Amino acid sequence: MMKSNVAEILKSGTVLQEIALKGWVRTFRSNRFIALNDGSTINNIQCVIDFENTPEETLKRITTGAAIAVKGTLAESQGKGQSVEVQVSEIEILGDSNPDEYPIQPKKHSFEFLRENAHLRVRTNTFGAVMRVRSKLSFAVHKYFQDNGFNYVNTPIVTGSDAEGAGEMFRVTSFEDNKAPVTEDGKIDYSKDFFGKETNLTVSGQLEAETYAMALGKVYTFGPTFRAENSNTTRHLAEFWMIEPEVAFMDLDGNMDLAEDFIKSVLGYVLENCKDDLAFLDQRLTQEESKLPQAQRSDMSLLEKLKFVADNNFKRVSYTEAIDILRNSKPNKKKKFQFPIDKWGADLQSEHERFLVEKHFKCPVILFDYPANIKAFYMRLNEDGKTVRAMDVLFPGIGEMVGGAQREERYDVLVEKMKAMNIDEKELWWYLDLRKFGTAVHSGFGLGFERLVQFTTGMGNIRDVIPFPRTPQNAEF
Amino acid sequence: MMKSNVAEILKSGTVLQEIALKGWVRTFRSNRFIALNDGSTINNIQCVIDFENTPEETLKRITTGAAIAVKGTLAESQGKGQSVEVQVSEIEILGDSNPDEYPIQPKKHSFEFLRENAHLRVRTNTFGAVMRVRSKLSFAVHKYFQDNGFNYVNTPIVTGSDAEGAGEMFRVTSFEDNKAPVTEDGKIDYSKDFFGKETNLTVSGQLEAETYAMALGKVYTFGPTFRAENSNTTRHLAEFWMIEPEVAFMDLDGNMDLAEDFIKSVLGYVLENCKDDLAFLDQRLTQEESKLPQAQRSDMSLLEKLKFVADNNFKRVSYTEAIDILRNSKPNKKKKFQFPIDKWGADLQSEHERFLVEKHFKCPVILFDYPANIKAFYMRLNEDGKTVRAMDVLFPGIGEMVGGAQREERYDVLVEKMKAMNIDEKELWWYLDLRKFGTAVHSGFGLGFERLVQFTTGMGNIRDVIPFPRTPQNAEF
Repeated sequence: MMKSNVAEILKSGTVLQEIALKGWVRTFRSNRFIALNDGSTINNIQCVIDFENTPEETLKRITTGAAIAVKGTLAESQGKGQSVEVQVSEIEILGDSNPDEYPIQPKKHSFEFLRENAHLRVRTNTFGAVMRVRSKLSFAVHKYFQDNGFNYVNTPIVTGSDAEGAGEMFRVTSFEDNKAPVTEDGKIDYSKDFFGKETNLTVSGQLEAETYAMALGKVYTFGPTFRAENSNTTRHLAEFWMIEPEVAFMDLDGNMDLAEDFIKSVLGYVLENCKDDLAFLDQRLTQEESKLPQAQRSDMSLLEKLKFVADNNFKRVSYTEAIDILRNSKPNKKKKFQFPIDKWGADLQSEHERFLVEKHFKCPVILFDYPANIKAFYMRLNEDGKTVRAMDVLFPGIGEMVGGAQREERYDVLVEKMKAMNIDEKELWWYLDLRKFGTAVHSGFGLGFERLVQFTTGMGNIRDVIPFPRTPQNAEF
Repeated sequence: MMKSNVAEILKSGTVLQEIALKGWVRTFRSNRFIALNDGSTINNIQCVIDFENTPEETLKRITTGAAIAVKGTLAESQGKGQSVEVQVSEIEILGDSNPDEYPIQPKKHSFEFLRENAHLRVRTNTFGAVMRVRSKLSFAVHKYFQDNGFNYVNTPIVTGSDAEGAGEMFRVTSFEDNKAPVTEDGKIDYSKDFFGKETNLTVSGQLEAETYAMALGKVYTFGPTFRAENSNTTRHLAEFWMIEPEVAFMDLDGNMDLAEDFIKSVLGYVLENCKDDLAFLDQRLTQEESKLPQAQRSDMSLLEKLKFVADNNFKRVSYTEAIDILRNSKPNKKKKFQFPIDKWGADLQSEHERFLVEKHFKCPVILFDYPANIKAFYMRLNEDGKTVRAMDVLFPGIGEMVGGAQREERYDVLVEKMKAMNIDEKELWWYLDLRKFGTAVHSGFGLGFERLVQFTTGMGNIRDVIPFPRTPQNAEF
């Protein structure tokens, strides 16, 4: 069979075969050399036109972005930069691309400009590479869990519960705006809304995933989650994909082992399966950093960083130890932290996490056993009565990659905690049922997928690692 | 290493090994025999208690649903129904389950009752099996596309576009109910909402997926989609997961090949990887159907049906041929159809699809080349000027499993069609751009994942193949 795409042809390398290809023109030079890309790989294939026997009219239409079909022979290349090329015998223009109008020209475009053209930006080398890596990374996630006996669970996106407590929620409704029916006492009559109650977009599938872990043993979610928070940063999205494994009979130590093994494994998978794209992204980042002052450049290249994380143990440090380190750190003593650390119990800010990860340990760090009062209601209380079995995995350049915990499995303790934190027991009756019927130690974590893609691809802004980012004041496309 | 779950232990079968297990009691009989399940397989492992040396207090607490830990030796079983069993040396009750309160008793519960206990129903054989098969089927989807060079694309869930035209949408907002700000002319001021515009939950990722296909070549989505339609049927959900591949340079024939190959392949995967669960579901369905009159029973068992579909070609029939068949069919002539078929151009109803699939062809059927005016604006017009390159894949017992089309790639034709159908060109500027810059033939389809799970598991109601179903008046859990 004829090879059907550029990736396969470049891989096979068998010269003198007849081939037929369809793709898009990246560049066309000297009226002879087409760099053709079909999305199957970051690499273009050079197609050499017999320009003397090609009508002038056709040559004019070979422009950046045009879709073409070529037939010809694969031959060893005489030129530099590629080992094989296509000696074209037939060319057909499938779809033109007017060079005066086409926004994606063979030059450097700013990421801001490309975000406004998110429907076309994936036609560039950088975004093509990022999105292929994202795809492979997704598959690595599924493969890891499936290979390890986990069941994929699709927890609901529209939820009637607002007790998840992970952040501000978007409302979902079928009411017309400002025309929701009201009851006699003037309240909104949600019984008349589509779902018969007030509904929101989920912020986490954890609570529902727990119900499945307590039956199937090991489960994971991988789906969209939402935060209606006005965070205009390079690491927040209003809509993002989250991975949430949950395992029965597993304690926090097992949870830390799982998170570390999982991250190393998926990075190993893309290192093995995205070599060309990662090599390109590695170069891109090095080039970008070369413009920065020496002090702001990374010690390691992208590839070195990925290999380092895949091959080295994460540092595990209790919150209490971390506070000691921070309290005695230079920036704290020199009052360089915006939020100085003076006593146990403080919530750690991004600046503290970055210090620990980037300056002190210089590797991914797992912090565990946080103060109970800065963490969620469902986390298991330690015997000390003041810390909970929570963990955060912190990554250089990214900050929090994973947040997880051993869950409070004791009915009485959980109810007391919910009361103290003003969480409605009636609404979470089903969550409490898990502690009433066959309860057991169990744990899990959430990993923001886009942060993992950011780390893997070296992209600085989270809006550039998801096809159509949703952020405050932006839901284009 | 000690084997850690029931599936592995039953598979290894090595007797005389020391094992430790945690799981939930399914049944306990004769104060001796525990059927233990840990979710890793539908099969329980029999754990035999030395009841004379076990405290009365402990024996009492071994009840259905209780979580326990056992240690002991794996031995050949003397009893019937299992080849190995655990001779228990140590037992610990991890979490009790009060038999007077626990809803899931070892007896037959109605599916309606279990839906009200969706947080616990996965602890039953049927739902455990269904959800394990669902998980494997999901993985088969990803594996198929990744093995065939497709890139996974996460299209947006919150969308600013309401032009997708696939159905009624839910609104997403941060406004307080009935307190949305209004402009001077009395309209809702969406510029003050979170996204700065009116936003909805997506009904399809197709349009966005097309933008990626026209750069990466082959892509697929697999994510939640939404319909705000008041359909209380056994095959509709307000929130469901959809699979949407989209391929550049592929025409409708290629699209039909892809849909057929895809479905056969994922069924083949679960037939190979879910043997125990499918055997159970096969038996369950046969038992259920045995209560029906002979005429209402299936010709084939569940497993036979799955193998039949995996091994036989789908029948491909044009809409025009189908209308001929229907017009001349017995039920049409005897006026048994609620909607009689008298002329070309009629939209096919469920009764017609069922006749074609279940009575006439007795196999999955692909209908193609539908009348343009009953299909969406983006489908490619045929040379006859009245049909479009649309296709539906119809399945016995399910109806429409797949809907797809070759997309209109000609800018002028598409614009004209949008005008005729009153679709705002300005809103879909980016979709039109695909036809302006490097356009080419391309095609794709959408497959409702839950219908595939229904077919694969033989479950009659779509609410029973998704963990927490969302339907009109229901968003529990």
